[in-house]
Amino acid sequence: MVPTTRAEIITIGDEILFGQITDTNTQWIGTQLTDIGIRPVRKTSVGDNRQDILDAFAEASTRVNVIIVTGGLGPTRDDITKHTFCEYFGTELEINQEALALVTEFFAKRGRAMSELNIQQAALPKNCTYIPNLWGTAPGMWFEKDEVIYVSLPGVPYEMKSLMEFEILPRLKARFATQIIQHKSIRTIGIGESFLAEKIAPWEDALPDHIKLAYLPHFGQVRLRLTGTGTDQELLERQLNEQVSQLLPLIEEHVFGYNTDELETVIGTLLINSNATVGTAESCTGGFVANQITSVPGSSAYFEGSVVSYSNSVKMNVLGVSRETLEEFGAVSEQTAREMAEGARRVLNTTFAVSTTGIAGPDGGTAEKPVGTVWIACATPDETYTQLLTLRNNRKINIELTSSYALNLLRKTILKANMALKS
Amino acid sequence: MVPTTRAEIITIGDEILFGQITDTNTQWIGTQLTDIGIRPVRKTSVGDNRQDILDAFAEASTRVNVIIVTGGLGPTRDDITKHTFCEYFGTELEINQEALALVTEFFAKRGRAMSELNIQQAALPKNCTYIPNLWGTAPGMWFEKDEVIYVSLPGVPYEMKSLMEFEILPRLKARFATQIIQHKSIRTIGIGESFLAEKIAPWEDALPDHIKLAYLPHFGQVRLRLTGTGTDQELLERQLNEQVSQLLPLIEEHVFGYNTDELETVIGTLLINSNATVGTAESCTGGFVANQITSVPGSSAYFEGSVVSYSNSVKMNVLGVSRETLEEFGAVSEQTAREMAEGARRVLNTTFAVSTTGIAGPDGGTAEKPVGTVWIACATPDETYTQLLTLRNNRKINIELTSSYALNLLRKTILKANMALKS
Repeated sequence: MVPTTRAEIITIGDEILFGQITDTNTQWIGTQLTDIGIRPVRKTSVGDNRQDILDAFAEASTRVNVIIVTGGLGPTRDDITKHTFCEYFGTELEINQEALALVTEFFAKRGRAMSELNIQQAALPKNCTYIPNLWGTAPGMWFEKDEVIYVSLPGVPYEMKSLMEFEILPRLKARFATQIIQHKSIRTIGIGESFLAEKIAPWEDALPDHIKLAYLPHFGQVRLRLTGTGTDQELLERQLNEQVSQLLPLIEEHVFGYNTDELETVIGTLLINSNATVGTAESCTGGFVANQITSVPGSSAYFEGSVVSYSNSVKMNVLGVSRETLEEFGAVSEQTAREMAEGARRVLNTTFAVSTTGIAGPDGGTAEKPVGTVWIACATPDETYTQLLTLRNNRKINIELTSSYALNLLRKTILKANMALKS
Repeated sequence: MVPTTRAEIITIGDEILFGQITDTNTQWIGTQLTDIGIRPVRKTSVGDNRQDILDAFAEASTRVNVIIVTGGLGPTRDDITKHTFCEYFGTELEINQEALALVTEFFAKRGRAMSELNIQQAALPKNCTYIPNLWGTAPGMWFEKDEVIYVSLPGVPYEMKSLMEFEILPRLKARFATQIIQHKSIRTIGIGESFLAEKIAPWEDALPDHIKLAYLPHFGQVRLRLTGTGTDQELLERQLNEQVSQLLPLIEEHVFGYNTDELETVIGTLLINSNATVGTAESCTGGFVANQITSVPGSSAYFEGSVVSYSNSVKMNVLGVSRETLEEFGAVSEQTAREMAEGARRVLNTTFAVSTTGIAGPDGGTAEKPVGTVWIACATPDETYTQLLTLRNNRKINIELTSSYALNLLRKTILKANMALKS
């Protein structure tokens, strides 16, 4: 069995350490390496500091076979990656004519003058393999020393991604007859991580060594991720599918999708397939449910619109909630949630409508209805389903959780309606 | 002068290495540490692997005085941080009664049963100082060994941030009597980072050495953050205020607030003070503007509601946009934006109403109206202001940018109306 190729991703730049920019590069590189069977075992960020960079290189070289370095290749003084590579490998910079030609062309094409600083971008360590960068002015570099590969790329995400995609990943693939790493995720909602773990413990214990399980919780959802390692793509695929089919019966009622599915994309597919439309009536979520639904490209095919009825007058005048209901049961009540959903179906003229009304907090709670008390409802042509949520969090999380549960109620309602039609 | 305290941030979890989740924690921690004068010198991510975690701890302990560790504290068996700390410090786990009481209360409050796994979350390494987590079930931990502080926090951003803010940062501040570090931020919108930089270059060049400037761009906004370092609180405060008052005249028309101000909080204050109400009519933003406005606690005092009119029928039937307008000018037009805003004012019965209609993408663009073409409008009792946006981004960013500009149009409109009243 082939030894797994191990990789470390090193990012260089004070702005990352100080949190002044969001690092999206390493996440992307992580997925790309994993996809070709190279296992990222560590990520390291160091500042624009000679010694820290040298240390990071030396340490990484004892751990992994592949080191991907991003950042510090700009023309300005604070970018010292190239010089540090020279020091590390005991070599020096020299102008690379190919690189110079490319940079010159880059500026000519844009009708921009070239500064001495730009010319210096074509100066590369003597021992590197030059990797042409067609997307910017900083060349990529490929070094090999003592069985370890060092790849140096600019930090600009677009340039880094293009260089990885067209130059680096193909070379790495060709070099390492790597293992295959495959993932399968099962997306669940409405059950806590620990309860899920208990339900599936026997199954989890029986997992073969080459298949690992991870729990990834997020706003009332838990994503179960299976990671399989092997050499035979088909076999691995089959083994993962077997495990999933053994797992499903244990947690069926909590599963809403797989892999990259999200509640809003699953709902979109259901609505398109059943040729139905949806709208929302939102109080405590203030438009967040609509925002989730419309985050999906093409959602205009099934999403008609929403009424965000924060005030009682909008609940009455636009959605037609009765004054009696509001006076007798209050704005946060099963009856109001029901009338909001039914009103939205009528006003927006949709097949389904989902509603939310609750106390998001931090204020507005009472002994009887504390912060986090939420009623949600979903109306269909035939009936209206309601659900009480008792959340206990801050405003933002209460809003996001309510939205998740409302979307899940909508999903289950659509499924029920489709069943009814079939039967 | 006190030697600077150096920190390393260690994140634990395969999902980060494999790029399956975006790590937002380390950026936030980086800014927070920097703010209290502790210098992050390295970030390290390792997988859920005993030896890799032990190595990371050992290496970090040779580099820094403060090690912040996040992740791997969940109840499930892929979370091994606590056990690894035990091995690292040569101790063992024991149930912490305080922690147990808190976890028990956590579940009792939510009326949820507690699993054995949850009870185990109260088991902590004997040598740790227990840090109560009021926001979740995984306690924080504080260790000290050989002059190095180890802090272990859950990876859930909300829990991690709350623990840092209320427990860890105050302790670190108290421990390391560092210099006084003060920040002042000026929040701007509607001008690019580089244009801003050009406008204020002379002022920036004249900044004294102990006051640094950072440009923090985010969705059409740029936050100018001044960071002053010194020993005399009052003097520093005065010096920062002087700099701000010199800066303001250069960029006045782009400034909407200071420090923690957000467009939605500034608008909230304006509306409360002028005793006015607002609603929204949203097409391409799909409820995101309403969601922004209602993210502010107490917004029910001035926010009546919204109509999200994704389909033309909702634009006509609920908002009263005329069929002729839609047929003659199209849904994405100045006229439609105007009628949407005026319709929302009428239907929701508010003082002001802001509207958005555009092509968020990725599909739906034409040669004449490419993706990113957006019209926004704001209606007052007397007139309606409109604005064309030509954005060129992906769907998500187009939606967030449109929302920012719509809120800014609303802000400027309220100010204009107040002026008119006064004069």
